[in-house]
Amino acid sequence: MAKPDVSTPKGFRDFLPLAAAGRAFLLEKIKKVLEKYGFEPLETPAIEYAQTLKGKYGDEEKLIYEFEDRGGRQVALRYDQTVPLARVVAQYQDLPMPFKRYQIQPVWRAENPQKGRFREFLQIDFDTVGEKSLIADAEIIAAACACLKEIGFKNFNVKVNDRSVFKELPQTAISAIDKIKKIGEDGVFVELQNKGFKPGEARKILDQIRQNTSTALIDKLFKNLENLGVQKDLYAFDPTLARGLDYYTGAIFEIEIDGYTAGSIGGGGRYDDLIGVFSNNNIPAVGFSFGFDRLMEAAKEANLLPETGSSTKVLVTIFNENLTKDSLALTTSLRDAGVNTQVYLDPEAKLDKQLKYADNKQIPYAAILGPEELKEAKITLKDLDKQSQEKLTLTEVLKKLAF
Amino acid sequence: MAKPDVSTPKGFRDFLPLAAAGRAFLLEKIKKVLEKYGFEPLETPAIEYAQTLKGKYGDEEKLIYEFEDRGGRQVALRYDQTVPLARVVAQYQDLPMPFKRYQIQPVWRAENPQKGRFREFLQIDFDTVGEKSLIADAEIIAAACACLKEIGFKNFNVKVNDRSVFKELPQTAISAIDKIKKIGEDGVFVELQNKGFKPGEARKILDQIRQNTSTALIDKLFKNLENLGVQKDLYAFDPTLARGLDYYTGAIFEIEIDGYTAGSIGGGGRYDDLIGVFSNNNIPAVGFSFGFDRLMEAAKEANLLPETGSSTKVLVTIFNENLTKDSLALTTSLRDAGVNTQVYLDPEAKLDKQLKYADNKQIPYAAILGPEELKEAKITLKDLDKQSQEKLTLTEVLKKLAF
Repeated sequence: MAKPDVSTPKGFRDFLPLAAAGRAFLLEKIKKVLEKYGFEPLETPAIEYAQTLKGKYGDEEKLIYEFEDRGGRQVALRYDQTVPLARVVAQYQDLPMPFKRYQIQPVWRAENPQKGRFREFLQIDFDTVGEKSLIADAEIIAAACACLKEIGFKNFNVKVNDRSVFKELPQTAISAIDKIKKIGEDGVFVELQNKGFKPGEARKILDQIRQNTSTALIDKLFKNLENLGVQKDLYAFDPTLARGLDYYTGAIFEIEIDGYTAGSIGGGGRYDDLIGVFSNNNIPAVGFSFGFDRLMEAAKEANLLPETGSSTKVLVTIFNENLTKDSLALTTSLRDAGVNTQVYLDPEAKLDKQLKYADNKQIPYAAILGPEELKEAKITLKDLDKQSQEKLTLTEVLKKLAF
Repeated sequence: MAKPDVSTPKGFRDFLPLAAAGRAFLLEKIKKVLEKYGFEPLETPAIEYAQTLKGKYGDEEKLIYEFEDRGGRQVALRYDQTVPLARVVAQYQDLPMPFKRYQIQPVWRAENPQKGRFREFLQIDFDTVGEKSLIADAEIIAAACACLKEIGFKNFNVKVNDRSVFKELPQTAISAIDKIKKIGEDGVFVELQNKGFKPGEARKILDQIRQNTSTALIDKLFKNLENLGVQKDLYAFDPTLARGLDYYTGAIFEIEIDGYTAGSIGGGGRYDDLIGVFSNNNIPAVGFSFGFDRLMEAAKEANLLPETGSSTKVLVTIFNENLTKDSLALTTSLRDAGVNTQVYLDPEAKLDKQLKYADNKQIPYAAILGPEELKEAKITLKDLDKQSQEKLTLTEVLKKLAF
């Protein structure tokens, strides 16, 4: 029989243990900070009725994974976490307001797979719904900065603008301005003309943007940031920041990490007309979204992920079948003390093979319990990185490995 | 404009903050224990090629969510985590063996929604692949027991049987025996006849099961459990345990929690012929799967979930607009000290309204910073549960709230 063709579908990814552990490490830090800022977890299902998602994403709607279920209903996979949030706010009318939630779930988009673009990726969203005060906007920015600091980033820039100054401009012009960092001012000048603006109009739009100064809204937002103790050199007004999405109504922001050149690692802003779409109310909201893949990449480049990928700290070897019992007892003692421990599962394997396994798995230590060690009531602890070893009592081993 | 109809699709669930926090609480404990036992995280995509899943689930195949993507490929949503594990093992040939992985992701099944049965639910799987030693089986059981103990369960029963004693029986008979706990021996007697067995045959099958005694495999497994320090009164041989799935080849086990009557909260066993399906090799494997919904329900009934649902410890109120600055500074001090803190976001709201918000959100404390408190350099800390309050210095507040 021929070997069946097995592969991960194009645009999708497996995360093997080292990668998955790195992801968990970063997510843990982010959740901790968001809860410190009073955001609470929300989970929505992967599948929504297609009508819930339709008419919400403009041109991008064609990227929605939509299909008919066995009951003949049109359903769709989660495309972002903002529309599900809007549905939840409309559906559970007794949610205490403001509703501060974070949501960390995968979304699916039928993108053309290319470098750094996937069909399934994790989004990290946090939003404050039901509050129009600028303290909410400031807190969103402060929380985003605190997440980055917790991960270990020291130098990054929050660019802030007031989207309402673009109010008179059509969305096509805003989308063109949004590209200013990628293609420069000259590029935007051309792009605007491609979108139908005359050279004079395009020039006028660009001149006006350059001349825009900080608004009263921005001043007040910055005052709140100061009161919240956010370092002043982390944020600045940027008249060219536009953000592509058309639903923003007030402050908009984007964060770039110094030295990470692939683009901003997240952004957000105020969108007071979107959340109420299902309830026909105006429900003010402000939020932020981290691109998790970029955040992972930036953290990796900056050496902020733990060096040893294996979550296992020590491999207990088995000297021979007769001594299995002692190695299992040692394994249990280590685990009871909180040490992540593997025991080699095949008592017939040679010690060399066992140590090679630990090495392959990037497990930092191996514990050896042979007849000699048992006689002395000691354990040989091998540091696989330094290739050194010492004989220790259980108490000494625990002191070395427990955290 | 009429309000659009908004709802969660039938069979799917939203988890609002209190529920989501309870889930996260339990998952955190389980992950910690599984890593202590040397299992490492694996993530696979929600979408697989349909051909990867097909022919693996017998009759249940009709419950797979399958659809054509925009590129005309037949794809399907993850139905369980065992088939993706088998794909991963075949696809990444350089995975060090044994491969001990845990996987906690949602799966989707087009079930008829009914009480306790959903179309999207979380599975908690942990498996050891590539090792036939019974130490692996024992370790799986020990890890499952440790998870339950970590959650706080004290009394539960691991029922163990040797599936190979059923080797001569057709799958229909095994499926009937599997129902013995639900429908009793008389029920199985009828069920076997419905499946085409003559009364005499059915009687013989039942008699034989009753007479089955522990096998050499079970004795050896129990010895390993003893060596791993698993409490003897937690596990026992059960000749009537059959497990429904047809892929088991050796030890099988199931756990019931005393006092929880909805059924077993998890089970597993050895399945040496399944994982190699994509590579045409025999790759031995043993694993366990917790039903997360039942585990949550059992933990709730046993009062093992934290009482206060909100992850926020304290709400900092804002006395009036002029004192906003001071309340924001206090908020930051609390957060910097690791206290999960919300600040009331609307400085114009009356204090009563602010306290009511804390109450609704089940936030246990409120901090009040008025002109009087500021003069004395103190903070009024209100215990919303006890309806008592005291004036404290910041240091005293931190001592009370920080953990």
